[in-house]
Amino acid sequence: MRVLILGGDGFCGWPTALFLSARGHDVAILDNLSRRAWDEELGFNSITPIASIEDRIARWQQISGYDISLFLGDLQDYEVVRNAFTRFSPDAIVHYGEQRSAPYSMIDRAHTVFTQVNNVVGTLNILYAMRDHAPEAHLIKLGTMGEYGTPNIAIEEGYITIEHEGRTDKLPYPKQPGSFYHLSKVHDSHNILFACRIWGLRATDLNQGVVYNVGIEETELDPLLCNRFDYDGVFGTALNRFVAEAAIGHPLTIYGEGGQTRGFIDIRDTVRCIELAALNPAEPGEMRVFNQFTEQFSVMDLAERVARVARQMELDITITHMTNPRVEQERHYYHAKHTRLLDLGLEPHLLNDETIAGLLERAVRYRDRIDRAHIEPTVTWRKE
Amino acid sequence: MRVLILGGDGFCGWPTALFLSARGHDVAILDNLSRRAWDEELGFNSITPIASIEDRIARWQQISGYDISLFLGDLQDYEVVRNAFTRFSPDAIVHYGEQRSAPYSMIDRAHTVFTQVNNVVGTLNILYAMRDHAPEAHLIKLGTMGEYGTPNIAIEEGYITIEHEGRTDKLPYPKQPGSFYHLSKVHDSHNILFACRIWGLRATDLNQGVVYNVGIEETELDPLLCNRFDYDGVFGTALNRFVAEAAIGHPLTIYGEGGQTRGFIDIRDTVRCIELAALNPAEPGEMRVFNQFTEQFSVMDLAERVARVARQMELDITITHMTNPRVEQERHYYHAKHTRLLDLGLEPHLLNDETIAGLLERAVRYRDRIDRAHIEPTVTWRKE
Repeated sequence: MRVLILGGDGFCGWPTALFLSARGHDVAILDNLSRRAWDEELGFNSITPIASIEDRIARWQQISGYDISLFLGDLQDYEVVRNAFTRFSPDAIVHYGEQRSAPYSMIDRAHTVFTQVNNVVGTLNILYAMRDHAPEAHLIKLGTMGEYGTPNIAIEEGYITIEHEGRTDKLPYPKQPGSFYHLSKVHDSHNILFACRIWGLRATDLNQGVVYNVGIEETELDPLLCNRFDYDGVFGTALNRFVAEAAIGHPLTIYGEGGQTRGFIDIRDTVRCIELAALNPAEPGEMRVFNQFTEQFSVMDLAERVARVARQMELDITITHMTNPRVEQERHYYHAKHTRLLDLGLEPHLLNDETIAGLLERAVRYRDRIDRAHIEPTVTWRKE
Repeated sequence: MRVLILGGDGFCGWPTALFLSARGHDVAILDNLSRRAWDEELGFNSITPIASIEDRIARWQQISGYDISLFLGDLQDYEVVRNAFTRFSPDAIVHYGEQRSAPYSMIDRAHTVFTQVNNVVGTLNILYAMRDHAPEAHLIKLGTMGEYGTPNIAIEEGYITIEHEGRTDKLPYPKQPGSFYHLSKVHDSHNILFACRIWGLRATDLNQGVVYNVGIEETELDPLLCNRFDYDGVFGTALNRFVAEAAIGHPLTIYGEGGQTRGFIDIRDTVRCIELAALNPAEPGEMRVFNQFTEQFSVMDLAERVARVARQMELDITITHMTNPRVEQERHYYHAKHTRLLDLGLEPHLLNDETIAGLLERAVRYRDRIDRAHIEPTVTWRKE
């Protein structure tokens, strides 16, 4: 299968590229390296040293014998998209090519506008390129569980059957996203559903939970293949950020009460989910939605698990609650369905102490690269 | 009350400005005259001759003694928005300032991207300007009934209480918009709801039906105050377009079967709805949604009503069905609630023969300005 990975230089995109390439798929990456640029902008860095995209791809070719094609450019530029589609002729397009940080989208007006325009226009360009240059291809779009918010009823996979005043219809599940970033994903979902309906395109929208862990088998083969490990208050996410804090003796920082409950997924399952979606494409005209996570945890649960494993490794751990920079419910009902990827064959890596210990060892190894000043959140949802 | 009307030079905006000004409100208009530019772009014109915005405002001042302030500029430019907010200090912001044609948004990729960026970024800029410069003001945002699509259950006003697996929540009503334009309004609705929630802003989202008729009392006072009358396949909407067709002996063109049912509203009610929303503002943190229409009709019903009145006026009328350029259901359940504006005191102008006859007379008077070549749709939803 020919798989074009948009955002293939990023945290999920790079492991996905290697995973699919290792399994004999013909892989191309389209990326504008913006994730690296945002680190530059904000003065951040990955805990793990990461090689340039060119060095990554060259090393992978030496080790595996497999080529990965590289297109450098911005999805907002239609000529970039058109060129990649016509030259590579993808069977599947894996779309990670968006600004994916909620805090980044909340920095100020300019970052809000950038995030929504970047994400929405990039996706519109992909839809038009599919219509005109790859109408049989399958779009595998990364959405987020955060599109749903925290409703007081069970979260279904994309659609819900509603009975109302004696009549029934199956409708898109109502969305209550919690940041301008999450909103951009909701906008995308609506646009994609419409494009499938009018142009007969195929799409799978993967509403992914919070991703933890760093490496998959292929990224561990060589230091030049190493994946990024974010820990800062903008791009770092719950579990990985707690690990970084534990590694340098910083208190584990809970935002508010810590009762916020979300779906989580190991990055080793992320890459397998993408493969499963690609091997089992949507029908023409269909936009399927899969909830891509394997377990629910509260933020407090996660901090306590990290603390317990860290103490076994004789790290000195405290847990602290700080004012929540976000506007969100801190105690709430949460029950999200996630059976469709299991039905396709996903065998989850559930969170265990070994995974946490491995992450802690990695963070301790590179602890000199962790800057304490970047851990705490600086972006707030409320008007200051 | 100080009311800033965004898009105050347009089909709904201009009558709204006069209506509110005539009732003693302090009115300002912010517009970039893009509606006129799109007519230039596509070679279209209003059936009625319309004066420049400067001449309109000057004549209104002479007739009424009331000043209307004018800010010229683009809502995508934050400095334009900030300047209008800080200089005018609005109590209410009426937001018509968007690209509002479904066919225009479907012309090609560039028009899709323009429509979504123009509408979404303009609204984001307004939300930030409210947060920083008018946190107590009330946003009165024009949405569209087209955001809901045609679900098989009753359409509620913005929110629906869902009982699911023994639990209950009131959630945003699921949206199934039918064009990239309608999608832009759905994106706006989600963004506004979020901004109200995190910043405590007040907003009323008016999901308006298809507007018919042309004049209100104030626009009829002088030729320089006359409102626009669109008839072309891009900006013309059902009833007004049928009238233009009848006036020149063109068959009334039904897209497909004509069973498409929608909510409709007389422009004299549009302006009153805006006033009612302004006089009864939303609470801080609240985004209310009102469905702003007064009657449901199928497209076929409307064509037959126009035909009957036109025949009484001895116009020669035929009705023809053409291939539907849109992708939409042509026979469907449709029942949309619309009680909230009635509860605030709206006394509807229901469609009657006199209104249709008045429109027909107006179109006949200017029939030389109607170009037959612009009536039929040239934009199709399907890939050609």
